[in-house]
Amino acid sequence: MQRTSLTKNPCPVARALDSIGDWWSLLIIRDAFDGVRRFGDFQRSLGVAKNILTARLRRLVADGILALEASSDGTPYQEYVLTAKGEDLFPVIVALRQWGEAHFYRKNERHSVLVDRHDNKRVQKIQVLSSNGKLLSPSETLVKKPSALE
Amino acid sequence: MQRTSLTKNPCPVARALDSIGDWWSLLIIRDAFDGVRRFGDFQRSLGVAKNILTARLRRLVADGILALEASSDGTPYQEYVLTAKGEDLFPVIVALRQWGEAHFYRKNERHSVLVDRHDNKRVQKIQVLSSNGKLLSPSETLVKKPSALE
Repeated sequence: MQRTSLTKNPCPVARALDSIGDWWSLLIIRDAFDGVRRFGDFQRSLGVAKNILTARLRRLVADGILALEASSDGTPYQEYVLTAKGEDLFPVIVALRQWGEAHFYRKNERHSVLVDRHDNKRVQKIQVLSSNGKLLSPSETLVKKPSALE
Repeated sequence: MQRTSLTKNPCPVARALDSIGDWWSLLIIRDAFDGVRRFGDFQRSLGVAKNILTARLRRLVADGILALEASSDGTPYQEYVLTAKGEDLFPVIVALRQWGEAHFYRKNERHSVLVDRHDNKRVQKIQVLSSNGKLLSPSETLVKKPSALE
């Protein structure tokens, strides 16, 4: 599909999606959070064609979300690791996970859960909070444009 | 692009992305949170071809994320409104926004911000917290598979 570039779009959501608003890219990032680092392992995990995976990994590296590193075990493989910018996507992936958990499983259907390594308990539900810590519904919020755009 | 269905995939992130893991779908949902309700308004906002918009809206309705309602002003238009399942995507959109704000603007470049309508202050940064409220980094968490998958 032909795509309009959103890199100059005024909206932060649009700029974010310009970089990662693609099914495969977000699944690659999910796998990277789960510790996948090598081309062949991404391919096995995702069942994706090599040319698509190559293109998506190249874009994620170009956008500074993944970085290429020498193999951690001395073998001649290169490994893909999340940069700081990539790690900052953690709340996005966890929010997607929790929405998936809530809406795409039958009652009693089991699914994986994200837990704190220290106590093995599930992480809290991700919430949008006001500056003083109150839970906000969408209708209680407002997108405020910079005055230059008003 | 040909796509494998992820509706039976064990991972909640994959099931979520099967439904909304598409650039246009997430931008349509963002617009819906901002109050856009009509086909023509989505089209103007997104600059997307009619056939693509039609297909994406149909999928979002089929997936129970948007619902069709009679026009709120008595005109013969139909309007697209977020369902409860759609509103549950709020943390996903806000997390994407905050990642976009952090990584896709030059220093001093202005962007829109999400504020609490009541006090006009920005919402808090979305975080992944442990059950007892501690901020968790990705490496402090673990995806725990249901025993059936182990």
